[in-house]
Amino acid sequence: MDAAEFRSLWDGLTPIGLSQQGGYLRYSWSEADQACRNWFRAQADRRDMEIETDKNGNLYAWWGPRHERNAVLTGSHFDSVPHGGAYDGPLGIASAFLAIDVLREAGAKPRRPIGVVAFTEEEGGRFGVPCVGSRLMTGALDPDRARGLTDADGITLAEAMDATAADPTILGADPERLDGIGAFVELHIEQGRALDGADAPVGVASAIWPHGRWRFTFTGEANHAGTTLLADRCDPMLTAAFMVLAARKEARIVGGLATVGRVESDPGAANVIPGTVRAWLDARAPDQADLDQILEGVQSKVNERAERDRTQVSVTAESETPLVDFDGGLRDRLAALLGSAPVLPTGAGHDAAILAAHVPTAMLFVRNRTGVSHAPGERADDEDCAAGVDALAAVLRELAC
Amino acid sequence: MDAAEFRSLWDGLTPIGLSQQGGYLRYSWSEADQACRNWFRAQADRRDMEIETDKNGNLYAWWGPRHERNAVLTGSHFDSVPHGGAYDGPLGIASAFLAIDVLREAGAKPRRPIGVVAFTEEEGGRFGVPCVGSRLMTGALDPDRARGLTDADGITLAEAMDATAADPTILGADPERLDGIGAFVELHIEQGRALDGADAPVGVASAIWPHGRWRFTFTGEANHAGTTLLADRCDPMLTAAFMVLAARKEARIVGGLATVGRVESDPGAANVIPGTVRAWLDARAPDQADLDQILEGVQSKVNERAERDRTQVSVTAESETPLVDFDGGLRDRLAALLGSAPVLPTGAGHDAAILAAHVPTAMLFVRNRTGVSHAPGERADDEDCAAGVDALAAVLRELAC
Repeated sequence: MDAAEFRSLWDGLTPIGLSQQGGYLRYSWSEADQACRNWFRAQADRRDMEIETDKNGNLYAWWGPRHERNAVLTGSHFDSVPHGGAYDGPLGIASAFLAIDVLREAGAKPRRPIGVVAFTEEEGGRFGVPCVGSRLMTGALDPDRARGLTDADGITLAEAMDATAADPTILGADPERLDGIGAFVELHIEQGRALDGADAPVGVASAIWPHGRWRFTFTGEANHAGTTLLADRCDPMLTAAFMVLAARKEARIVGGLATVGRVESDPGAANVIPGTVRAWLDARAPDQADLDQILEGVQSKVNERAERDRTQVSVTAESETPLVDFDGGLRDRLAALLGSAPVLPTGAGHDAAILAAHVPTAMLFVRNRTGVSHAPGERADDEDCAAGVDALAAVLRELAC
Repeated sequence: MDAAEFRSLWDGLTPIGLSQQGGYLRYSWSEADQACRNWFRAQADRRDMEIETDKNGNLYAWWGPRHERNAVLTGSHFDSVPHGGAYDGPLGIASAFLAIDVLREAGAKPRRPIGVVAFTEEEGGRFGVPCVGSRLMTGALDPDRARGLTDADGITLAEAMDATAADPTILGADPERLDGIGAFVELHIEQGRALDGADAPVGVASAIWPHGRWRFTFTGEANHAGTTLLADRCDPMLTAAFMVLAARKEARIVGGLATVGRVESDPGAANVIPGTVRAWLDARAPDQADLDQILEGVQSKVNERAERDRTQVSVTAESETPLVDFDGGLRDRLAALLGSAPVLPTGAGHDAAILAAHVPTAMLFVRNRTGVSHAPGERADDEDCAAGVDALAAVLRELAC
């Protein structure tokens, strides 16, 4: 596939959900999401593929024999983080349709059904929980909990589905559908710069690092910023600031990652010492022991500091995801097929990580020269995207034709 | 005055604007503010005092000869910070009415007019700018700027006044009224614990520390928290956290105060390295040189750190208030009158600081045993409040009778 062919399809998707403040707002069950789904249906129609929506709102287009058994599924998600990039998610769906074009032009015929899938609410950008569509399908997310999830405006997932004429009452585990999937391959833009360093347009995922999100609540005593002596203060902002710096240090020691992207204070006035500060720690590491070491190191240092600040600290795990090792046989087969493509781990969660517990699963990464991700500056070269399509076509031919 | 008499009046004011989340929400031009104004009018009526509202929404009740010249004004403000205490402001107004009762019971007759005043929007809790009523009166705040100030819901001060049938078109400097004021005395709950240490129920203010508010904007590069290597990051949260800790150190060195009560990040998601972090520094010190040293120390250390973090820092002064020295003659006269009451500085701004540039001005402080201020736990003993009323009565008799 050449870069222009990729660009020609891609240009149909890039206007949808573009924010005037930069990046994309493609929240699940929003108008932008509906426009993406319409684009999906048009692509499927154009290729005479059968369109289907499962009970959890995930969207499919099918090529080849009836798709009850042993299907090869490929795709990703449309939804974005707030002001995210164009590629994270949609590239995997667009590449799937283009890979089918490549196979058809080469005269390939599927002996296993090939499905293109768009999973719903992968980022958790609207309802706070990532991989809602794939977790519901595998039974990892309770349907009542899913229905009750609320967005920033207090709208529940059930209400948001209702508003688009989707049926939220039938959400839940879908073991028959899961049984019918023989393999899942997700193509995704790389979210770092390892492929750039390796000078390769496409790589294969080895594993997803164990990772989690912890909410730190620092409690002190709200008081007047202009009159309370330093010695009389119990200022939780100090302990929170210390945590931000301590987390960075602990992550560096083990070669992991630590990020504090969100901080809130109460009452949050510039002239009041806060009574409470909340800060969210996102930490990831190559293995579970390293991740535990980061968290334990941060907690022990923060507890010491809290004594000096006369504040209290409590820590709540909002999510914890263990190491995901992708199917070793599939991974090595694909890497060999793609001419010894680099095999690399990632710190990011994906629907592929959810399916990997049930189905042989692999991921392909497309080079991201700047490594920018979850931000408007996310980019992949058209040439690299076209190379990704060719790689995905080769993988689908290997597995399904 | 005994404590029970104080309590009896005070209990009429404490239910107004009490928040279910703790503390008071008494924003200017709100329903709670109207209720406070109604309480004020009832108190004035009960004492046969003439009620008046000036062009800037400040409310007066007058006792004694016609009040054109050489009046002794006393009072404070009704409005609160979000979830502030009961005493900050209203204590000065309630004590003024009670001090007049004390004088009348003792048969005193004013030779100068005595006015009780409630200034509007002292805290800046609704429209962000403190001392709006007194600044407008003295010409320190442009009326067009005041009218355009907006609250958290986007309602302008002009619209908020309109909604209560107050006239925002006549806001502005009021030199005639200012000329008529011969002295201003503001009684206020102490916002620290100095009187507790000195074992005195009432003190006299010497000065208000120079102070200011600076908005620090830290700019880096938004990116994926799960995939961006530490070495590739430009994470402004690190620089912001460093600023919080550096400010505390610099303030300690000079014996001043530094507080970061509010931090915001963009995009503010737990799994995204922020592109921008804003943090507000409130700093105060005994003199201008000390305050300058805090700010310069913080800026120079933060700039060094920003280089390491590969972030940019910009600093905007949102407000800067120079040292206010209260009238020395008046201060010494009152301290002697009150039996060598402690004379102490404060780090907090007040309407008294605005008037001090134009009129001989003094402040009385009432003991606050815990020092809690701008928070629900703010308290003064009824006995101390009654002692404050007696002190204020003595001051008014000395100045006006």
